[in-house]
Amino acid sequence: MTNRPLLEELMEALRCLPGVGPKSAQRMAFYLLERDREGGRQLSRVLGESMERIGHCSRCRTLSETDICSLCSNPRRDDGQICVVETPSEVVAIEQATDYRGRYFVLGGHLSPLDGIGPREIGLDLFERRLAEGNIQELILATNPTVEGEATAHYIGEMARARGVRVTRIAHGVPLGGDLEYVDGGTLSHAFSGRREF
Amino acid sequence: MTNRPLLEELMEALRCLPGVGPKSAQRMAFYLLERDREGGRQLSRVLGESMERIGHCSRCRTLSETDICSLCSNPRRDDGQICVVETPSEVVAIEQATDYRGRYFVLGGHLSPLDGIGPREIGLDLFERRLAEGNIQELILATNPTVEGEATAHYIGEMARARGVRVTRIAHGVPLGGDLEYVDGGTLSHAFSGRREF
Repeated sequence: MTNRPLLEELMEALRCLPGVGPKSAQRMAFYLLERDREGGRQLSRVLGESMERIGHCSRCRTLSETDICSLCSNPRRDDGQICVVETPSEVVAIEQATDYRGRYFVLGGHLSPLDGIGPREIGLDLFERRLAEGNIQELILATNPTVEGEATAHYIGEMARARGVRVTRIAHGVPLGGDLEYVDGGTLSHAFSGRREF
Repeated sequence: MTNRPLLEELMEALRCLPGVGPKSAQRMAFYLLERDREGGRQLSRVLGESMERIGHCSRCRTLSETDICSLCSNPRRDDGQICVVETPSEVVAIEQATDYRGRYFVLGGHLSPLDGIGPREIGLDLFERRLAEGNIQELILATNPTVEGEATAHYIGEMARARGVRVTRIAHGVPLGGDLEYVDGGTLSHAFSGRREF
């Protein structure tokens, strides 16, 4: 195929990983070759299989190796609540941090008309069908607190309200353990105007 | 095979890489699945091939996909000089930082009698045969400046002196207790050109 040494190819290939530069790639390559060949073989196998077999859940669009993901097929979760997030990693973050037991819907991004990303590109035709099933009582909007995330939340909120579904948005404010002095102005302003009875 | 989700297996497998904990592994897995499947496939392929095909040069013991590595088979390099290092990554470091054009010998460690690592385990039988070939005029000792590295340098130095070979040691300037692999290029180059009779 190529005339390049395989070791160089390996270092180059390792750089596809986020946060891995030339030095880290070199360290990883030598580490695997000299100390953990079995780990390297296992990673090669699982990685190849993952790239081929992990697709998207046809119901919530999160990453899944089955047509319907384990969260969607779990009969013990609450069909009355649905949480909308931008990416699959946010599903994992919410599962790990909260005791939420409802369903999810993964947009895979946010509305961005200038980049040609409209409602269909973030799966809102599929989401409309979820709303039409009629089970959902509460829609929890957990898109990112960015301009695009807010606009997307607004758009989806309107879709749900049109069907009489209660719409909530996760709270935004000063993070726990954060120092008021170092929080950015936008967050502080948001936290201030969103104050609640104590 | 297992009942574990493939995505979990992928995150677990990525942790065989040095410096990659659970959070980084999760980030890497999602990144590859959502943004760079082609990179992931390529990494899987090259990694698997590397683990099978990269072995050790039968002449200098560095990592090589051929029986004799490119440094040993290069006819333009000087057979009169041989540089002894502990690991293959140190060969790369020296090649990148210096203009050394001689040969190498990779010990793959250092003498450590208490761990059962004697002369044979670090390839000194093979090295003795290199000395017996009679071409070598200068032996450059570039083992790490640690207690074990110094002891190993001393032992190898005596082997070479017994055959009338000039023995040099790279200059101290490399901090004691430091690891050759992580020294900056300028220091390494300085230490290399400033080598003295040993």
